[in-house]
Amino acid sequence: MKPIKVGLLGLGVVGGGTWKVLNQNADEIARRAGRRIEVAAVAVRDVAKAKELVGDHIHITTDGMDVVLNPDIDVVVELVGGDTLAKDWVMKAIEQGKHVVTANKALLATHGNEVFAAAQKQNVMVAFEAAVAGGIPIIKAMREGLTANRIQWVAGIINGTTNFILSEMRSQGLSFADALADAQRLGYAEADPTFDIEGVDAAHKLSLLSSLAFGVPVQFDKAHIEGITTLAAEDIAHAERLGYTVKLLGITRAREQGIELRVHPTLVPSESMLANVQGAMNAVMVHGDAVGSTVYYGAGAGELPTASAVVADLVDVARLVDADHDHRVPYLAFQQNAMADTPIMAMDDVQSAYYLRLRVEDRPGVLADIARILADTSISIGSMFQEPAVNDETDIIFLTHEAREGDILNAILKIQTLDFVRSPVTRLRVETL
Amino acid sequence: MKPIKVGLLGLGVVGGGTWKVLNQNADEIARRAGRRIEVAAVAVRDVAKAKELVGDHIHITTDGMDVVLNPDIDVVVELVGGDTLAKDWVMKAIEQGKHVVTANKALLATHGNEVFAAAQKQNVMVAFEAAVAGGIPIIKAMREGLTANRIQWVAGIINGTTNFILSEMRSQGLSFADALADAQRLGYAEADPTFDIEGVDAAHKLSLLSSLAFGVPVQFDKAHIEGITTLAAEDIAHAERLGYTVKLLGITRAREQGIELRVHPTLVPSESMLANVQGAMNAVMVHGDAVGSTVYYGAGAGELPTASAVVADLVDVARLVDADHDHRVPYLAFQQNAMADTPIMAMDDVQSAYYLRLRVEDRPGVLADIARILADTSISIGSMFQEPAVNDETDIIFLTHEAREGDILNAILKIQTLDFVRSPVTRLRVETL
Repeated sequence: MKPIKVGLLGLGVVGGGTWKVLNQNADEIARRAGRRIEVAAVAVRDVAKAKELVGDHIHITTDGMDVVLNPDIDVVVELVGGDTLAKDWVMKAIEQGKHVVTANKALLATHGNEVFAAAQKQNVMVAFEAAVAGGIPIIKAMREGLTANRIQWVAGIINGTTNFILSEMRSQGLSFADALADAQRLGYAEADPTFDIEGVDAAHKLSLLSSLAFGVPVQFDKAHIEGITTLAAEDIAHAERLGYTVKLLGITRAREQGIELRVHPTLVPSESMLANVQGAMNAVMVHGDAVGSTVYYGAGAGELPTASAVVADLVDVARLVDADHDHRVPYLAFQQNAMADTPIMAMDDVQSAYYLRLRVEDRPGVLADIARILADTSISIGSMFQEPAVNDETDIIFLTHEAREGDILNAILKIQTLDFVRSPVTRLRVETL
Repeated sequence: MKPIKVGLLGLGVVGGGTWKVLNQNADEIARRAGRRIEVAAVAVRDVAKAKELVGDHIHITTDGMDVVLNPDIDVVVELVGGDTLAKDWVMKAIEQGKHVVTANKALLATHGNEVFAAAQKQNVMVAFEAAVAGGIPIIKAMREGLTANRIQWVAGIINGTTNFILSEMRSQGLSFADALADAQRLGYAEADPTFDIEGVDAAHKLSLLSSLAFGVPVQFDKAHIEGITTLAAEDIAHAERLGYTVKLLGITRAREQGIELRVHPTLVPSESMLANVQGAMNAVMVHGDAVGSTVYYGAGAGELPTASAVVADLVDVARLVDADHDHRVPYLAFQQNAMADTPIMAMDDVQSAYYLRLRVEDRPGVLADIARILADTSISIGSMFQEPAVNDETDIIFLTHEAREGDILNAILKIQTLDFVRSPVTRLRVETL
């Protein structure tokens, strides 16, 4: 079969990695794909620098639209990120009847429904394995490997930067600020780490996983997002003593009232698979009614791991480049005409167990008053733990049974009016998985 | 699209599970597949019992050939196991131009090359996700998710029975015999557990994973196989103290001289992902040159988990039932005309680190003599550990650096001629992964 021609938008970390993998493993890939996958054009900002990597035989341009409109190109690989230029190029590529491979979670999380609708109309593929959890083939597992299942929930460590920071905070007892500085020094966090540490990047990815799990449109705008910036070293230490590890999880779960879609720091049992994911690694746990719990673990970012996912998508595209829609896997695992409109639940209605830490004055009656408020708001206490008092103050920690988030917030408001409560209540969610 | 018609051979644990999943999740599956998947005929030993499960509307026969020759059937799902009747039916189904889905690792490990060659000629699919690691979509991950990579090695816990027994031996300090009895009582081991405990089942699966990784024919007959029957509780305890956990691993690795293909008890670092796979669960670690290490974890057996894999295969088949070969994923990940003839290495040439335990008389010069033999056979000692002597005897434990298996065996032969060595040397392999 004749080679498939690729147009590469962006030759940064992932673009450069894609180029390298396609070249280094060209024979191995062709042995699998049954045809060669050749980069025919690249769009970059710096032509001279690009030439050093790709040489003189590849058409290099500074205008992505050149690549998109190039009639020789079968597949456009978008690795520039963002949702302005990238979006124009992706939409134009689709309009031109070209297939698209992208690692752009921000684009798909915010404009995915529009992108997939256009692609469906033009009978082209849009593949995005690299957009979630880097080299781990989690999109493929969910779109194709677990098709027998009613997926019940997905919980994932899908941001390496925050997992690195949390691993450092735990193992070294560092504060968030110090661990972030370490992460930046070692290249695990960007100069502006906002998207990572505030949970936005994880929420982008989670929105896609939620659609794949439940066959609903991508709804990043409905996600509840909390980052790790306010997490205190002492809560990580308390959690550890209680047998838990704090991880930034993306969780999406089907409930009777709708779908949970939430990113937040979470206490998970220290012996669980997710608790043992260290450093910048990623892992996604998917629970299906037939298969039970499955876990997918690997590098969630980086040049070659992400390129591994991009190139796997290219092999899929190469195989079905001239096939029709019926022969292809639907973009979001479910046929476009079979998507559901199950609502995303308001965070107040989500049920979870909670970790609450209260700094209180050490005097009689404190526990009684707090316990009364929890009882009155229907919150059942699973266990309790009190630190020895220092300077007449002490920390009380409660682990609650499952409760409605709205009820917990209500209880916290009441507790904070008590005159012996010395600082805002720390509230973290607990998941047994 | 019109429904795809399935003929089910066998309605035991996995067959029954497949029936249940196809029915319980029929709508969810159709939302994904774009068409319904309907069981049109089943072959069973006990028609009356089958009727209780599938009702009166499905054609039930006691002769598998009836199903295979039924012109209404698009796909034959073989879930009877073994390689006599099952083989006849699978080969006949292929000859009839029907697609095949099977969970039969014994059949594919011993006759896979013949089956795939016939299927290639007849332009039909043979899907076998359920044959390895139950519900974990490991075949899909390796055939499609990691196509960008030169796979370097695969190491897996791919037999739940032995992992359950080893977990019990470790956590309860049980002997192999007692742990096996527990496993049988709890339904994790069969009445005749030979295939599991001798490592044959794991080797069947490993042979398939090796072909998927390296694009070589299935070569179960060349696998080196050691089970767990001679494993002593004290070695598990010693390993634990040294920071290792003993697991039955299937390992296949590309080396310059060829491919390693081996199943044996292995010491792995206790903090590694594989060490923490408990009970009857399975996990497979795949290392690719681009992606690095990835892990796939889940239930490796059982009614519904295995059915999850069977039905996922059916959805794949449903999608490409009328496509041609170019649009489909090759049986063993690599195109049939691009298979390699890389040799499987003799076990003597395999390099590994080793755990050696020697029961010796407690007298001066013992260590010097042993250390001399190891040095003379080019074996470098990583660490050493000696138990306090009891009744003038003691255990010495060596962890060696990587050495050639042949050299280790040679050293052991020499050591066993020393008059102060009181019992056969225990030798286990150590992998850092």
